[in-house]
Amino acid sequence: MGMIGGGPGAFIGAVHRIAANIDGEIELVCGAFSSNAEKSKQAGGQLYLTPERSYASFSEMIEKEKALPEDVRMDFVSIVTPNHVHFEPAKLAMENGFDVVLDKPMTFSLAEAHALKQVATQTGRTFCLTHTYTGYPMVKQARQLVASGVLGAIRKVYVEYPQGWLSTFAEGESSNKQAGWRTDPSKSGMAGCMGDIGTHAFNLAEYVSGLQVSAVCAELNIVVPGRALDDDGAVLLKFNNGATGVLMASQIAAGEENNVKVRVYGEKGGIEWQQQDANTLQVKWLDKPTEIYRTGTGYVSSYAAHNSRTPAGHPEGYLEAFANHYRNFALTVKARRTNNEPKPEWLDFPGIEDGVRGMAFVENVVKSGKSNEKWLPFTL
Amino acid sequence: MGMIGGGPGAFIGAVHRIAANIDGEIELVCGAFSSNAEKSKQAGGQLYLTPERSYASFSEMIEKEKALPEDVRMDFVSIVTPNHVHFEPAKLAMENGFDVVLDKPMTFSLAEAHALKQVATQTGRTFCLTHTYTGYPMVKQARQLVASGVLGAIRKVYVEYPQGWLSTFAEGESSNKQAGWRTDPSKSGMAGCMGDIGTHAFNLAEYVSGLQVSAVCAELNIVVPGRALDDDGAVLLKFNNGATGVLMASQIAAGEENNVKVRVYGEKGGIEWQQQDANTLQVKWLDKPTEIYRTGTGYVSSYAAHNSRTPAGHPEGYLEAFANHYRNFALTVKARRTNNEPKPEWLDFPGIEDGVRGMAFVENVVKSGKSNEKWLPFTL
Amino acid sequence: MGMIGGGPGAFIGAVHRIAANIDGEIELVCGAFSSNAEKSKQAGGQLYLTPERSYASFSEMIEKEKALPEDVRMDFVSIVTPNHVHFEPAKLAMENGFDVVLDKPMTFSLAEAHALKQVATQTGRTFCLTHTYTGYPMVKQARQLVASGVLGAIRKVYVEYPQGWLSTFAEGESSNKQAGWRTDPSKSGMAGCMGDIGTHAFNLAEYVSGLQVSAVCAELNIVVPGRALDDDGAVLLKFNNGATGVLMASQIAAGEENNVKVRVYGEKGGIEWQQQDANTLQVKWLDKPTEIYRTGTGYVSSYAAHNSRTPAGHPEGYLEAFANHYRNFALTVKARRTNNEPKPEWLDFPGIEDGVRGMAFVENVVKSGKSNEKWLPFTL
Amino acid sequence: MGMIGGGPGAFIGAVHRIAANIDGEIELVCGAFSSNAEKSKQAGGQLYLTPERSYASFSEMIEKEKALPEDVRMDFVSIVTPNHVHFEPAKLAMENGFDVVLDKPMTFSLAEAHALKQVATQTGRTFCLTHTYTGYPMVKQARQLVASGVLGAIRKVYVEYPQGWLSTFAEGESSNKQAGWRTDPSKSGMAGCMGDIGTHAFNLAEYVSGLQVSAVCAELNIVVPGRALDDDGAVLLKFNNGATGVLMASQIAAGEENNVKVRVYGEKGGIEWQQQDANTLQVKWLDKPTEIYRTGTGYVSSYAAHNSRTPAGHPEGYLEAFANHYRNFALTVKARRTNNEPKPEWLDFPGIEDGVRGMAFVENVVKSGKSNEKWLPFTL
Repeated sequence: MGMIGGGPGAFIGAVHRIAANIDGEIELVCGAFSSNAEKSKQAGGQLYLTPERSYASFSEMIEKEKALPEDVRMDFVSIVTPNHVHFEPAKLAMENGFDVVLDKPMTFSLAEAHALKQVATQTGRTFCLTHTYTGYPMVKQARQLVASGVLGAIRKVYVEYPQGWLSTFAEGESSNKQAGWRTDPSKSGMAGCMGDIGTHAFNLAEYVSGLQVSAVCAELNIVVPGRALDDDGAVLLKFNNGATGVLMASQIAAGEENNVKVRVYGEKGGIEWQQQDANTLQVKWLDKPTEIYRTGTGYVSSYAAHNSRTPAGHPEGYLEAFANHYRNFALTVKARRTNNEPKPEWLDFPGIEDGVRGMAFVENVVKSGKSNEKWLPFTL
Repeated sequence: MGMIGGGPGAFIGAVHRIAANIDGEIELVCGAFSSNAEKSKQAGGQLYLTPERSYASFSEMIEKEKALPEDVRMDFVSIVTPNHVHFEPAKLAMENGFDVVLDKPMTFSLAEAHALKQVATQTGRTFCLTHTYTGYPMVKQARQLVASGVLGAIRKVYVEYPQGWLSTFAEGESSNKQAGWRTDPSKSGMAGCMGDIGTHAFNLAEYVSGLQVSAVCAELNIVVPGRALDDDGAVLLKFNNGATGVLMASQIAAGEENNVKVRVYGEKGGIEWQQQDANTLQVKWLDKPTEIYRTGTGYVSSYAAHNSRTPAGHPEGYLEAFANHYRNFALTVKARRTNNEPKPEWLDFPGIEDGVRGMAFVENVVKSGKSNEKWLPFTL
Repeated sequence: MGMIGGGPGAFIGAVHRIAANIDGEIELVCGAFSSNAEKSKQAGGQLYLTPERSYASFSEMIEKEKALPEDVRMDFVSIVTPNHVHFEPAKLAMENGFDVVLDKPMTFSLAEAHALKQVATQTGRTFCLTHTYTGYPMVKQARQLVASGVLGAIRKVYVEYPQGWLSTFAEGESSNKQAGWRTDPSKSGMAGCMGDIGTHAFNLAEYVSGLQVSAVCAELNIVVPGRALDDDGAVLLKFNNGATGVLMASQIAAGEENNVKVRVYGEKGGIEWQQQDANTLQVKWLDKPTEIYRTGTGYVSSYAAHNSRTPAGHPEGYLEAFANHYRNFALTVKARRTNNEPKPEWLDFPGIEDGVRGMAFVENVVKSGKSNEKWLPFTL
Repeated sequence: MGMIGGGPGAFIGAVHRIAANIDGEIELVCGAFSSNAEKSKQAGGQLYLTPERSYASFSEMIEKEKALPEDVRMDFVSIVTPNHVHFEPAKLAMENGFDVVLDKPMTFSLAEAHALKQVATQTGRTFCLTHTYTGYPMVKQARQLVASGVLGAIRKVYVEYPQGWLSTFAEGESSNKQAGWRTDPSKSGMAGCMGDIGTHAFNLAEYVSGLQVSAVCAELNIVVPGRALDDDGAVLLKFNNGATGVLMASQIAAGEENNVKVRVYGEKGGIEWQQQDANTLQVKWLDKPTEIYRTGTGYVSSYAAHNSRTPAGHPEGYLEAFANHYRNFALTVKARRTNNEPKPEWLDFPGIEDGVRGMAFVENVVKSGKSNEKWLPFTL
């Protein structure tokens, strides 16, 4: 694996590396960690890479790695830069034959998303978008339960992602690199909160429910004075089967951590999952006791079982969920290179279509947020 | 106390009686339990009343009780009929000098609510509307904390009330008296879910936040085929201080019980309360550990302490919350009759203004639900 | 109902009165609230009793009430005095034809307990001992589940009751009447913590498991300097079917409220209940999801349903659990007086045998606590 | 790192490899995965090792690796074999200059533990014993809080580890390799449950409380017919400061996963931590609200902060706790090799002394379990 971005001060780069490391199947062999050549070499050195494979730019990395013998060169690219540097490296990597793991949201704009989808389609490359939460075993269990029909037709979806970390004008402190770029329209895109965590919530809702959003009514707010992008919002949702829903995302819910939660109700029961109790899935029924599904038990679906590493009761967390995407991506890549059929469980990672829909979500809710009309159709 | 309504098959009548009984300060002395004279006498008999004071109509009860000596006649009236029989008995009672406890929502329509307010003002009667949830000690603690300013200015309010009991066409079963009238526009009013539990959520949000809703964007749904009134909905909220919020209420969230929950976030922290863990109040902070306030402890406010009957750890529930309204109402009535000043803690029960705002909520969200405009001002 | 004890400053007297009031079926008609005639009249006056029926002693009350016409005199006696004043009034009441509700532990000593049992047997009076926790609907559900055999043979029982309220030398403050008598061997008996809350835990364990303790290995501690009785302890248990268990009780677990909890494990699964989430019963299984039983739902046993007053999700608490004992006692008394057979659900309240076993528990663990031998047989 | 044990079918070997991998600082370079040369090579191959460095025995591995150049040979040994193959490889490794990570319990017997301590002392090697639970950030926070004295002198310790996985005679199924050796006295040692998970609970109690057990009163049970070692037990504890405690461990608590939990109470408050909510530490107080400490927040101690990889709300789990021991061990080893002083936070991993005390725990409770005397002094 070669990494683009993720130098000093970056949060998500380290997460990607841990996620890739966990199973001992993926090795970091090179990187373009910074657009500053010196800084990139320094970062590479700290990660036990040689200066030769610590590149000054992603284009240099892709070019030089491509020139290496097949058994030496990187197998795929992991891109962990801010949003405005997603499209170019992903495109270049795929065009040069490299599979790609990309941090969410997929691109800077919906137009870029469509363009990237075209590149992926034309090159046939395997592509993974790291929407972490769908990597949790109990989220997979939830999706399987809904898909099995035991809850009946889905009627209602609630999804929420409250955070409190942007309750103050954190981007005013130069040391807060994270707050800096995530609230900067030139780097983050047209949305702040909705792009950063709203897309996670949206992806989670569609993944678990198996439905697609067809209309939105959004309210986006800039709560902290001086901020350039939305830091809070709520969206009423209509789904393609007639169900409705509510999506809430906030970065000014003071005291909240990363409290993402999803609830889906059908005719006969409902499911509830939240990250703070990630290894538990509540399944509620109209007429019998609530059931508590747990990671690592013997009764979970093959999807949940495949994405778990420890016996029941030994909690797995965020890094393992993240690692599941890497592992499934890698298993799929490996199978395809050896002309084998990837198992359905391996293919269950977020891909280019999730990315396009995520960017459509961003553009639709921003548009709706500015509109006086209540409902806007969800357009791609 | 004399009761209007609450005969056989009624749910809330029994709750009112228990709530009135708990503290041994209120005695049921008469009732008009049914519009059928025989049934009323029968119900009265089961409640240890004589046939003479088991009246055939509320008008008969008010008239005859008024004629009794002051130390014999009922002190106040408790009205627990369906919504369409709220206004008339409440008006008549007040006009004849009786104080009134009335089940929510206050009236059948906003017009009736305004009219009842006028009666209350003119007669000077004490009036209590039984929005149960603001009777919980930890809800009172939440309000006091917010009011004290420790959370800073309020920015966001989430309130939700998911139920699942109307997931099927329960009103089709003649035995289900509850489902019957609550989904019948001629008895319930112009809203179903929003009138029945949406008003509770609305009241709770305004009570805890100390704010008032100033605009709404509502989506109301009839999910179960054949139903005449909304059984689900969501409302985006704007508050008078610039804060925003989301209100969710559903009767088709299959598997949910009465899972009412409120969250309020300020600049420095937030509070969270939910009925399923009613004796706990979470207070979350930007920069220090979450605090868990508990009913019955030594450190709670005078409002929480006054509304609690057991030591910490011995849970109090719904009936005690309900009883708190009765007790505070009774203490206030008693004080006023003896020309004493009621304590501030006693006066903290929902009154006529809450009732007017609740009915305005119903009419505003029904109007918004039908409108293509996103935001409608909240009008009284 | 006539009450003995429960004057000003008493905690449990007020609880008994509320519990008796809740269902509107029991009326307080007289009392001997204090051994000081003036105080008793004052207390009675506050409870709306006439001076004539506010007696100066329990013997006076029993004598005078007995002389009243049957439809006027008290129906039964409720005794809420400290432990050293349990036996005499209970005996006298039963000998004079009154049924009895008595606060736990039953008597001052095991010898008194045996004597009281003899009185009860000879007089044929109905007797209820208020071990609150077995009044909770979900505790009854737990007992029924265990009894049904679905968990297989019972192998392990954990029961615990941690409190923190005696973490300091509270009996040193003259205002703390509760701490005063509960730590005073002349009023409380030979045990402190074990008599006050250990007996609750013991009763709960035997009730839910359906088993009887057959041997104990106890460690009793006086943790707070100057205290005269145990304020902490743990007991290893053997049961009559070969199962084992652990009982932990503490009054110096600083920060704990009244956190009583019981777990019972069989061959195929286990149950868990705790007062802090009183309306929930966890049923854990070897090979399928944990089930969450909830008060007020449609699927609970007739025992749980009978002992519940509100729909699911509207929590019931300590006072309702307490009231269930009163209600079942009253239903049983009423049935017997009218020569009807009480329903099995009505008879499910703690009685004289629970009281004897509870006092045997106290004496056995005190003896074991002083012994160097590991196991002592549980003797009655 | 070179691994001893951990071939196919082993559970804990994979856990160790993941834990070592996570931070990208430790590389598996060789192994003796099985005493069968062929199987070891096969296992090595699956882990991307060459046949040359997939050894047929630990002695071969140690000998051959020692002969390699310093920058090629393994840095340290990780031993993940069943208990009866702990002492020999650990001793040989240390005597040949290799630092050692060893799975718990440390040895087969207390005598071996003392002998190994002597080896460690004489060779000066760094030694880590993987008692997982003390690797959790919130367990470290708990220890720091207790050590800081804010809770006052410690009075009571409750520690419990209920599991249900040995509720049936699982060792009868040849496929269940885990159940097989863990219930076999020739491989596990003189204790089953107490050796496997009792030692974890014991270590956790001493670590968090900062105290040492000084006397025990143990009851050990073989619940499942046919089993050769204890599968359940409870131990009353005395600590060296006069505090008391209870330790409960069971493998027949049907329906429990790995529900390890510790509670420690001082004069002013108590702490509670349990693995099922691993990123939360409850701190309860006599006279103020319970505080909820959370992993990844800004207010935790340097020990908790150092042992955490994700922002608050993104849960970390068992593998990360395990990885913390590897990381701290590796940081310490690295510092010592470069003649630097390891930071106090790095040195906070379980070592040889924990191992000796753990084996003493096993022997003391087995002895006590067979004794009729109540208390036995805890002897080393």
